[in-house]
Amino acid sequence: MTQPQNGATTLVNTLVDHGVDICFANPGTSEMHFLAALDNPRMRSVLCLFEGVATGAADGWYRMKETPASTLLHLGPGLANGLANIHNAKRASSGMVNIVGEHSISHLKYNPPLSSDIEGLARPLSHWVRRADSADTIAWDTTQAVQVASEHPGKISTLILPGDVSWRAVETPIVPPARDAARKAPLQARIDHIARVLKSGEPAMIILANRATRGRALDLAGRVARATGARLGSQFFTARIERGAGRTPIERIPYAVAQATAFLEGFQHLITVETVEPVAFFSYPDKPSLMKKEGTSVHALAEADEDSELAFEMLLDALGVSADAPQMIQPALETVPPTGPLNPISIAHALAVAIPENAIVVDESLTTGRESMGLTMGAAPHDLINNMGGSIGYSTPVATGAALACPDRPVICMVGDGSAMYTIQSLWTQAREGLNITTIIFANNSYAILKAEYANMGAGTPGPQAMAMIDIGNPRIDWLAMAKSMGVPSQPVETAEDFTRALADAVRQPGPKLIEVRL
Amino acid sequence: MTQPQNGATTLVNTLVDHGVDICFANPGTSEMHFLAALDNPRMRSVLCLFEGVATGAADGWYRMKETPASTLLHLGPGLANGLANIHNAKRASSGMVNIVGEHSISHLKYNPPLSSDIEGLARPLSHWVRRADSADTIAWDTTQAVQVASEHPGKISTLILPGDVSWRAVETPIVPPARDAARKAPLQARIDHIARVLKSGEPAMIILANRATRGRALDLAGRVARATGARLGSQFFTARIERGAGRTPIERIPYAVAQATAFLEGFQHLITVETVEPVAFFSYPDKPSLMKKEGTSVHALAEADEDSELAFEMLLDALGVSADAPQMIQPALETVPPTGPLNPISIAHALAVAIPENAIVVDESLTTGRESMGLTMGAAPHDLINNMGGSIGYSTPVATGAALACPDRPVICMVGDGSAMYTIQSLWTQAREGLNITTIIFANNSYAILKAEYANMGAGTPGPQAMAMIDIGNPRIDWLAMAKSMGVPSQPVETAEDFTRALADAVRQPGPKLIEVRL
Repeated sequence: MTQPQNGATTLVNTLVDHGVDICFANPGTSEMHFLAALDNPRMRSVLCLFEGVATGAADGWYRMKETPASTLLHLGPGLANGLANIHNAKRASSGMVNIVGEHSISHLKYNPPLSSDIEGLARPLSHWVRRADSADTIAWDTTQAVQVASEHPGKISTLILPGDVSWRAVETPIVPPARDAARKAPLQARIDHIARVLKSGEPAMIILANRATRGRALDLAGRVARATGARLGSQFFTARIERGAGRTPIERIPYAVAQATAFLEGFQHLITVETVEPVAFFSYPDKPSLMKKEGTSVHALAEADEDSELAFEMLLDALGVSADAPQMIQPALETVPPTGPLNPISIAHALAVAIPENAIVVDESLTTGRESMGLTMGAAPHDLINNMGGSIGYSTPVATGAALACPDRPVICMVGDGSAMYTIQSLWTQAREGLNITTIIFANNSYAILKAEYANMGAGTPGPQAMAMIDIGNPRIDWLAMAKSMGVPSQPVETAEDFTRALADAVRQPGPKLIEVRL
Repeated sequence: MTQPQNGATTLVNTLVDHGVDICFANPGTSEMHFLAALDNPRMRSVLCLFEGVATGAADGWYRMKETPASTLLHLGPGLANGLANIHNAKRASSGMVNIVGEHSISHLKYNPPLSSDIEGLARPLSHWVRRADSADTIAWDTTQAVQVASEHPGKISTLILPGDVSWRAVETPIVPPARDAARKAPLQARIDHIARVLKSGEPAMIILANRATRGRALDLAGRVARATGARLGSQFFTARIERGAGRTPIERIPYAVAQATAFLEGFQHLITVETVEPVAFFSYPDKPSLMKKEGTSVHALAEADEDSELAFEMLLDALGVSADAPQMIQPALETVPPTGPLNPISIAHALAVAIPENAIVVDESLTTGRESMGLTMGAAPHDLINNMGGSIGYSTPVATGAALACPDRPVICMVGDGSAMYTIQSLWTQAREGLNITTIIFANNSYAILKAEYANMGAGTPGPQAMAMIDIGNPRIDWLAMAKSMGVPSQPVETAEDFTRALADAVRQPGPKLIEVRL
């Protein structure tokens, strides 16, 4: 580089030097020099019309790549708009580097309208927050932001960039030393203990999460299960799971407290891998928070920051089982294409038929998909992504980021109508970037999940005003018009055969598509 | 009430007892008992499909009523989604009571997926934050929340409501003592000093803000101006200003730093009323932060928490001028209906023709409306509302809340296409509630303001990638489809005469309407 560097160009160069080569951006006035710096052939910039799309897309990028993306947000309120999906990303252990524009240091003392306590807004949901205070040190700050975001599990880094730091010339840049991302091994004593538990023959479930639900870690888990008779499970929600025909199958612990408790009742031991024991998503007046049977023991094979692949290697060794012993394998299941009315079962069958090999399925279908995804276990091998943080509006942004991360893989985004509305601006970025994403809107015209939760809570029979707060059918959202407004072709379906055909067609064609499933 | 009360019903009863009788709601599972409690005939509930709509609507409600509305938000991420418009409301001195659902106290220790540091998220943008920790004390908490929100200037109160506090029975309710909202008078010595300044004949501008820009305070300001020769000004953005024919006219200090500096150059004294001296909205490499001429004196007639009506009474008294002395009056200006191409001037003329008496105009038009609103000074009397916090996406929610506050007054919402996308879900609530809101979308297919700001910042000529981050025309948003998707009728206009006619028709008809102004 022979061009004179300023804070912004140095920041962008440092990001790409460390492999962060995409920026999901929603810029404003204070970020103009950063915007200029984005004109860097090594950096890809993707414009989002709402900040929650940018942060959710960064999450989706990480879910597939396991390396962080960056976002560009406009001062405190821009960060605030992105926080809900930062929460979801944090809970999914996704790494992310947020660049938040800020007034110049000299301007802040006048308390201009857009100023706010950005550190205060960032801290509750970031692992690392820093305000860049000079152009000379910004390479250091940026390097650290990326190092932290790249740890295992992934972390949220937030770097606040004042305008004057952005535009000032860099004179004597300083950078921190490189840092090795060492694999962290579990203690041998813990492994030995778990080997003894598994050899005891007492019923055990190994609960896999994060990186243990894919790749070699999952293969090795399948060998442990086959050798010991332990069952493999996952929390109801997983950051990304590799599943389908030919993969090691994982049982899903149910969402509802009563079903989860019944499911877990038979196990004497829960062995956790990059996760903790199952906890109810919400609290209810008369239901427990912990879902295991009283007296069940919980053992951590790998903590969240440990290397689960290594843990399974060590465990196989302790068990005296070869690392290429036979494993459990999910057979391909031929699903008969469904016909007739659309309901959770026929929808799941349609998915089983139409999910193509190597697809990425992002699931935020809540009521429609909650109980039936098991029927897609024998579909063509694919990745399944769930919402780990529970903040609604994660799926369409995550699908956007996943599609950018994996341009050769079709993405299927299953989302309820109520959920889709939070970050519907994603469709525009999908059209702009020509992403092969099929968004399936389950249009039941209500916050259907809340109808069930109302009863679960023992809040009595909803009165008319309470019911109205759950009913989003007045007016009915016209999903075909919504898709058209942002340049996405769309199609309604009212039968299982139409849905199966529409989905199979959509995933084969390039570019985004929206299918309205009329329930 | 003979029904047994729980925390939630007590909370809702306490709100309505203190005049907070509307709730802009986006509920989730943890708020089911609160939802049940909303089935209270004294409380109106309005469903919003995104939390930024709820908080912005509460802002709009306060702007018109000067009493706080409540919102219902779902845990930390639901609050986070509402924060940008809470920021705008805070900067507009709007009071608001946010009820944020939370897990039960007993469930929090398990760190379930939706848990986060809600206090941490709330504090940077709230004046008052409390976690309700028992059903018996929730009436006390709620009363304080409303008392704080109702102070002058209005404040942001955030009450965190754990599920178990919501569902538990109230046994021995306790409430705080009533609090008098006393008018706070400025010191007589300051008034006397300002009277001397005004009598000196040195050029002075009285800068009005918040409650001083309407009602009797504005009338009195007009009398001071007429009696002393001082000019009346406002910041570029004002929370709500009563203007038009027959009202006391206020000059608007320009937005751009160079124009504002030139405008203020002639004044030896700036006299501030519920505001501070003019500050640049952003900082630029080569421009000042403060916009007054060096050597200009600044005097506070009324601080933000003082009663400006009283201050003007005292000032007139100190000046020896009668409180019913003649005042400055804006004459009605007959505007010729514009024809031909749409541009900022013809658009402003169309507004001057079509704004009906008593209309509420919410302005987020940025580039299109920025320089031309002066041309509507002589239109029929109306209220003008601006964005005080600078976070984009304030206008369509604020228009929603203003229309609910004033069902007999037509609302006109002027918004750029880029800005409209942040909280576009407002249209659905407008359709659902049948609100007479005419949303005017200025469709220039770009973040046009950033093109200008890029140059202002001296960031050079934008390269292709930087330009792409400012250009939202690919794909072009289909505004007619967008309006249709949420049940709002719409119409495109391409000439000034069509725009004038469409606007005049729309404000006369009940229900929402969207006009796409194609630029």
